Amino acid sequence: MPRTLYHLPLSPFCRKVRIILGEKHIPFDPVIEKTWIEREGFLALNHGGTVPVFVDEDDSVIAESGAIAEYLEETYPQRPVLPGSAAERAEMRRIALWFDLKFDAEVTTLVLFEKIDRRLMKLGEPDMATIRAGLENLNYHMDYLSWLSEERNWLAGDHFSLADITAAAHISAIDYLGDVPWVHFPHVKDWYVRVKSRPSFRTILGDFVPGMPPPRTYADLDF
Amino acid sequence: MPRTLYHLPLSPFCRKVRIILGEKHIPFDPVIEKTWIEREGFLALNHGGTVPVFVDEDDSVIAESGAIAEYLEETYPQRPVLPGSAAERAEMRRIALWFDLKFDAEVTTLVLFEKIDRRLMKLGEPDMATIRAGLENLNYHMDYLSWLSEERNWLAGDHFSLADITAAAHISAIDYLGDVPWVHFPHVKDWYVRVKSRPSFRTILGDFVPGMPPPRTYADLDF
Repeated sequence: MPRTLYHLPLSPFCRKVRIILGEKHIPFDPVIEKTWIEREGFLALNHGGTVPVFVDEDDSVIAESGAIAEYLEETYPQRPVLPGSAAERAEMRRIALWFDLKFDAEVTTLVLFEKIDRRLMKLGEPDMATIRAGLENLNYHMDYLSWLSEERNWLAGDHFSLADITAAAHISAIDYLGDVPWVHFPHVKDWYVRVKSRPSFRTILGDFVPGMPPPRTYADLDF
Repeated sequence: MPRTLYHLPLSPFCRKVRIILGEKHIPFDPVIEKTWIEREGFLALNHGGTVPVFVDEDDSVIAESGAIAEYLEETYPQRPVLPGSAAERAEMRRIALWFDLKFDAEVTTLVLFEKIDRRLMKLGEPDMATIRAGLENLNYHMDYLSWLSEERNWLAGDHFSLADITAAAHISAIDYLGDVPWVHFPHVKDWYVRVKSRPSFRTILGDFVPGMPPPRTYADLDF
């Protein structure tokens, strides 16, 4: 079986895995899985019904983006996305978890669910108060990102790593909606320009959700 | 500096780290950190203000339980809590993430916050509807645990691992409140008896929150 990634284009957890696969030059077939349909064949692969799910050449089935990330690093160690020492890896995982837990709960889930999922799943009009709360929280996380990108070359230290990939996966999903206040955060913008320039980011910038086009600057290096 | 763990006794994320340290026979000083006080010295260690935070002998500071777990396995490989192959580790991490993300959002956060945090932080009366929703969700997760513990020796396969530790960390916090419907889930109970018997679990069973004693059976092997 060819390597396959079941994913949703705007899910930051799926974007994270797509970028890792790109960084490592691992070819795979991307399959868009509309999880809310609860397709039987997909539930057989992943009881939890969530994306991303990665199926490797040997038919190993891996669910949960954190598990897929560590699996890919262990199985395909070329072009590593984890830094070299245990202490550096700990700092990197701390930042990645910050985005996957805190940023996700306080920003991504609120904004993306209301603006995108509700529409795709036909759950009615978005709740504007929830979106406003998410965008309010976004400023606080941008402050933190700003501090990190001012202090360090990349978010977890000297090298590009899974911390940058995870943060960019979340930020890019919000940016698809045109909701990142770039003008107030020049240091974060400088960092994001460098992320956007990486070949692994190309498919992310090419994403297109039918009926919901991204703003013109979404894919531009000059934004 | 001696190895230190800043923690809260009923936090499943802190319990996870305490059990790992116990499994690996790593001595450490436990320090209870009341995170809602936002103590300056603690915020200097961890900007996010969350527990657990682990400080190693060489003063490395690690935040986020997932990062601490991987750090401890890498730095103290004796008595491993991760299985041997990449595919087994992926399955183990999937289950651990299931509990830290899904079980936490659908059960732990609802029940523990309403019953414990509100009281400790003096935020008023618990919301009974939220508690009921959390306990309703618990049944669905117990079904999944039941299926896993019937099919396998330990949750992720043949060996006790971080999957068991993570699941038991969450279940034990709910059990402290007397809210686990053991009578309906004999397979899960069999698994939990075996977890409870491990020496690494002893300090967990000895926890005591002033004014909120656990039920009599909390620490018993016969419950």
